[in-house]
Amino acid sequence: MTRIASYVSGGQAFYGAVAEGGMIALSPAFHQWPTLREVIEAGALYDLAVAARDKPVSHPDGSFDYTIPIPVPEKIICVGVNFPDRNAEYRDGQDAPPNPSLFIRFPRSFTGHGQPLIRPPETPQLDYEGEIAVVIGKLGRRISEDAAHDHIAAVTLCNEGTLRDWVRHAKFNVTQGKNWDRSGAMGPYLVPFTAAAQLDDIRLTTTVNGELRQDDRTSRMIFPIRRQIAYISTFTTLVPGDIIVTGTPTGAGARFDPPRFLQPGDEIVVEAEGIGQLVNTVADE
Amino acid sequence: MTRIASYVSGGQAFYGAVAEGGMIALSPAFHQWPTLREVIEAGALYDLAVAARDKPVSHPDGSFDYTIPIPVPEKIICVGVNFPDRNAEYRDGQDAPPNPSLFIRFPRSFTGHGQPLIRPPETPQLDYEGEIAVVIGKLGRRISEDAAHDHIAAVTLCNEGTLRDWVRHAKFNVTQGKNWDRSGAMGPYLVPFTAAAQLDDIRLTTTVNGELRQDDRTSRMIFPIRRQIAYISTFTTLVPGDIIVTGTPTGAGARFDPPRFLQPGDEIVVEAEGIGQLVNTVADE
Repeated sequence: MTRIASYVSGGQAFYGAVAEGGMIALSPAFHQWPTLREVIEAGALYDLAVAARDKPVSHPDGSFDYTIPIPVPEKIICVGVNFPDRNAEYRDGQDAPPNPSLFIRFPRSFTGHGQPLIRPPETPQLDYEGEIAVVIGKLGRRISEDAAHDHIAAVTLCNEGTLRDWVRHAKFNVTQGKNWDRSGAMGPYLVPFTAAAQLDDIRLTTTVNGELRQDDRTSRMIFPIRRQIAYISTFTTLVPGDIIVTGTPTGAGARFDPPRFLQPGDEIVVEAEGIGQLVNTVADE
Repeated sequence: MTRIASYVSGGQAFYGAVAEGGMIALSPAFHQWPTLREVIEAGALYDLAVAARDKPVSHPDGSFDYTIPIPVPEKIICVGVNFPDRNAEYRDGQDAPPNPSLFIRFPRSFTGHGQPLIRPPETPQLDYEGEIAVVIGKLGRRISEDAAHDHIAAVTLCNEGTLRDWVRHAKFNVTQGKNWDRSGAMGPYLVPFTAAAQLDDIRLTTTVNGELRQDDRTSRMIFPIRRQIAYISTFTTLVPGDIIVTGTPTGAGARFDPPRFLQPGDEIVVEAEGIGQLVNTVADE
């Protein structure tokens, strides 16, 4: 399976193919596409895969850092409360709502694979949320559920790191608790999406220091990914490079009694079958 | 007062100075800055004003359409429930919250001055919200209230058009009701920010077909603009071109009994002292 990543080395941004022992840089040969957003816009993820064949590693492990796969997407839309027990976790007596809860994150709220999530001095309540993210490949508005998969170019992983107390700071919304600089992570890389089986019933887990905290399957989503794309595109035009972060299973640290928030030095692994592992540590700012 | 606008003419995007009878195009002479975002990043709004002096109109009225002033800001952050009676309007028995409610809008949810707001076929509940928007001119994180004004490059107006029933579709958030394509407007132009008096106690009104619907003063904000900048920059780095939409007075159409939503052909005028008038009509999609 070809895996395409964005990374920095020696202060310079690249994209390339993940290989045994390092990266095969591809961006120097495709300067018409400055980032993976333009690659996806051009429908050229497959061209990258072909170009990487039999090429040697240009950046060996240790000589580069992963960045988020699409550095500047037009939008990152996150789906909340999307696994059955998540709704019960809210303990507000409400039935599952008829439509998905949505919120927005800025790219700067994420860091790359292998980088620390940043715990700010303002609050100790940094929490993890393991999720699968889909990258839109084709522009569309009012996309039908049947056509939804045609609009996905790639899949990746997300640790939708959250500052819990800041999520409930005001009358409505979760914006501020979801948008601390580098409080979450995305990556490690894009896996081109070619078959429904890559999304329809795969296992998604999150571990903290090796302990299993979240463990569920995409088939149990309240709002399946097809429905998410149909619903979101009702009101906004989805464009290539847009990212939908599709919801986290039960088991975030806030739901334990007492809560188990992340501490400096913790290692969080978000893993999904066929996509890979997104690994991050935690550091104080 | 120099006013700097973004607009399209003959399919081409420009920025320029607003003059008697039309626009003085400036973008052709400043191609190092493709949009007003880069102009602001370079701290060059004043340079534009100087360059426009004694220049003739290049695009007479009728030959161009306004677009939103910053076509692709990194982020547009909106403040909700920010005038005293707005909190009471929610009738949920809650006191005013200790922190501002925040939500995000995408640039594509706005259209320019003079363009119609688009009422989609999915819901008739298109509503207006007149607001003042500030444009960030200087990067900052954890900006103090004292320093907040130093980070504002310009001010403009916003009609934060909202599809009311879609605001309450799910368990939390207002994202979807606030992000219908071209449901709101921003502009007409940027007014460079040079003195606190431009923001501290100015009148803000909204009329629909000439009838006054919203009428308040910025001095009555629950969270003054200085506090908004300090609060938001606690969690996210504000960068040049970022826009904060600072909150709407009481009197939106949803608050009438029965509600008075916008209809095709309505004309909405958002006006603030020293900034100008943002005028839009309404059209069915």
